[in-house]
Amino acid sequence: MTQPTQTRSWVSSANGHADFPLQNLPLGVFSINGSAPRSGVAIGDAILDLHAALDEFDGEARRAVEATAGGQLNAFFELGRGPRVALRERLLELLAEGSKLQTREAHVLHRAADCQMHLPAKINDYTDFYVGIEHAQNVGKLFRPDNPLLPNYKYVPIGYHGRASTIRPSGTEVRRPKGQTLPAGQTEPTFGPCARLDYELELGIWIGQGNAMGDAIAIGDAAEHIAGFCLLNDWSARDIQAWEYQPLGPFLSKSFITSISPWVVTAEALEPFRKAQPPRPEGDPQPLPYLLDKRDQSAGAFDIELEVLLTTASMREQNLPAHRLTLSNTEHMYWTVAQMVAHHSVNGCQLQAGDLFGSGTLSGPQPGQFGSLLEITEGGKKPIELPCGEVRKFLEDGDEIILRARCSREGFASIGFGECRGTVVAAR
Amino acid sequence: MTQPTQTRSWVSSANGHADFPLQNLPLGVFSINGSAPRSGVAIGDAILDLHAALDEFDGEARRAVEATAGGQLNAFFELGRGPRVALRERLLELLAEGSKLQTREAHVLHRAADCQMHLPAKINDYTDFYVGIEHAQNVGKLFRPDNPLLPNYKYVPIGYHGRASTIRPSGTEVRRPKGQTLPAGQTEPTFGPCARLDYELELGIWIGQGNAMGDAIAIGDAAEHIAGFCLLNDWSARDIQAWEYQPLGPFLSKSFITSISPWVVTAEALEPFRKAQPPRPEGDPQPLPYLLDKRDQSAGAFDIELEVLLTTASMREQNLPAHRLTLSNTEHMYWTVAQMVAHHSVNGCQLQAGDLFGSGTLSGPQPGQFGSLLEITEGGKKPIELPCGEVRKFLEDGDEIILRARCSREGFASIGFGECRGTVVAAR
Repeated sequence: MTQPTQTRSWVSSANGHADFPLQNLPLGVFSINGSAPRSGVAIGDAILDLHAALDEFDGEARRAVEATAGGQLNAFFELGRGPRVALRERLLELLAEGSKLQTREAHVLHRAADCQMHLPAKINDYTDFYVGIEHAQNVGKLFRPDNPLLPNYKYVPIGYHGRASTIRPSGTEVRRPKGQTLPAGQTEPTFGPCARLDYELELGIWIGQGNAMGDAIAIGDAAEHIAGFCLLNDWSARDIQAWEYQPLGPFLSKSFITSISPWVVTAEALEPFRKAQPPRPEGDPQPLPYLLDKRDQSAGAFDIELEVLLTTASMREQNLPAHRLTLSNTEHMYWTVAQMVAHHSVNGCQLQAGDLFGSGTLSGPQPGQFGSLLEITEGGKKPIELPCGEVRKFLEDGDEIILRARCSREGFASIGFGECRGTVVAAR
Repeated sequence: MTQPTQTRSWVSSANGHADFPLQNLPLGVFSINGSAPRSGVAIGDAILDLHAALDEFDGEARRAVEATAGGQLNAFFELGRGPRVALRERLLELLAEGSKLQTREAHVLHRAADCQMHLPAKINDYTDFYVGIEHAQNVGKLFRPDNPLLPNYKYVPIGYHGRASTIRPSGTEVRRPKGQTLPAGQTEPTFGPCARLDYELELGIWIGQGNAMGDAIAIGDAAEHIAGFCLLNDWSARDIQAWEYQPLGPFLSKSFITSISPWVVTAEALEPFRKAQPPRPEGDPQPLPYLLDKRDQSAGAFDIELEVLLTTASMREQNLPAHRLTLSNTEHMYWTVAQMVAHHSVNGCQLQAGDLFGSGTLSGPQPGQFGSLLEITEGGKKPIELPCGEVRKFLEDGDEIILRARCSREGFASIGFGECRGTVVAAR
């Protein structure tokens, strides 16, 4: 088991920290006072500067730290599991109570609050999947009440290519996009600011080692190609989407920005929170052989609680607490991450270190578990009332959306992902 | 006028060359005998090594050459029009008859046949449009005979994100992809090699200077953001596509490979071949204001003849000439390249130097002008007979597809794009 459940850290804020106890150790890229971006590890309310501590590492762990140079983790991702695990094991020693690294605290630790977070890697290609079956059903119902899921859904881990250039770290403002929309009852579109701006709660998956073009990644090997995980908000302009998406899929309705949490939570940190892929409902087909692996079926899923919070400008002025919109879980993924990797590469498509996958919106079946306003308000038909008396069909300027994730299991230290935040600002 | 129509080159193969006379001067990235990739200019049957000739350039032209260093043209693309034009003007002097560069021929010129061509730039994001209206109608007719075009087509320059990691230069083999397909009359898919492999004839567009996220590129400025053009074969697995593409668009049916011609033909070389955007048919709506620009309407289109040739393994054995499948023209683009750029960025989506657009398949309205086998054989229903007696519904292993382009106008030297080739090899 890769989680040392009882060990405490000399970084006192780490002990009992909601996101970043010693048992997590996610990697990221930060800068401080305008410095060049560099790699670090989140520990409590602090960030360990990996290069400042370089002389504490040797062997595979040192190779891993060296690969994080240059303000991008791509080369580190490409190294794969071995060096990543070696780095984790050494970090567990260095940051545990009693380590002499504490004597160098001023040299190697920064207060996270003083740092700016960046994208952890150069994202070569971004793919957004659609594996949240409850979301697919909820959205499908709006269009096809009797037959919400298309015939391919239970055979194909549906995905499409997204825009890599506009993926931004948590905290980046979300400029309301302009575009063409078709007003209800009209036959000609108008142009203007999006009036149905939405969030989508997703899990992000960082690809580690890539494959050569033409070589498929077998599902049994897929885990070796995954570097880590983050939260992802697939901001969506529903009115632009409805008008543009036939016949080739979403385009400008999604490409204005995609927000991610900046810390890469490793597969090793998530190991205690793996679980069996839930059994398919009676009558559902078995996955085709290239998507079927015993180990993946028995431990390929995750138990990660996912939460979406909203604050409006007025709520923040009144110091009101954030309002929870969604409480969901990764267990609503119909396909595992390994199935996504195997499917994506089965045609010979080349994956590269630093590619990012989105899971698709991870809604649960119940109200309160829906991962987008489209689902919560049934396409704007049922506005929600907020604690301060405001109502929302979709997002308004000044609204801030906060995604969080938390993994808890009896006998293990809980870990989180850190936040993925974004505040909507007016169209230009 | 940027074309010196009468000037001859001291590189004798350039004079009257079908693709690369003095009046073209496309840029590319090549290597020779396993050397590091470097930048060059095609001239007749030769390649001018830009860095070997660096001391021949100064001012803006030298800045342009320096930006082509490192085996990728991205930084050169980012410089924009000014340095690109200065480079062209200096190249026109250096390669014209009488230039003293001829005395350095052995130092600065390579035989193209000795060189290997590479992708000209690191492609950050690849977007495939669908602006060939005849193709959209031909394909639409297969599914909706009475209503082939969707309601958004004449308002929205339809596009979708493509896979950047599998774009390859001409000559790269095309491995037949495997994937899920739904056999006719069945309700459950099977897995295996694609049985309906197709080509798509497209124009490729290289993006030059990018825009900041949140800033739209006005249509009047769009031309400043285009670095050049190439040919693009959007290889398509029709059976995989039919099963996977609902509701989010094509994915694995396209991502196994996209081939491009390796030379970047500049806007300046194409200047004599620009033409007015053909008037919209009676009853078609005018473009929305953000897609409307007088200069673009009057000279935003191109007259580029496009050709697709096929050879089979058996034809090559028998030394039979290639069989022409398609003779089309860029005039079948319903939207101009400037309209594509303005639309893509209108929501604030960031374009970056080295992004690539595909036009979408550029079919004409007549048989013989169709830019894919899907259209030519009506989805496989009407096989074509080849000169050697073979028949094809779709591509078979060993088939080679060759795309060519040619620009001709009375009083001007004709130019071409070079070839975009790919040979199908058996699935693994």
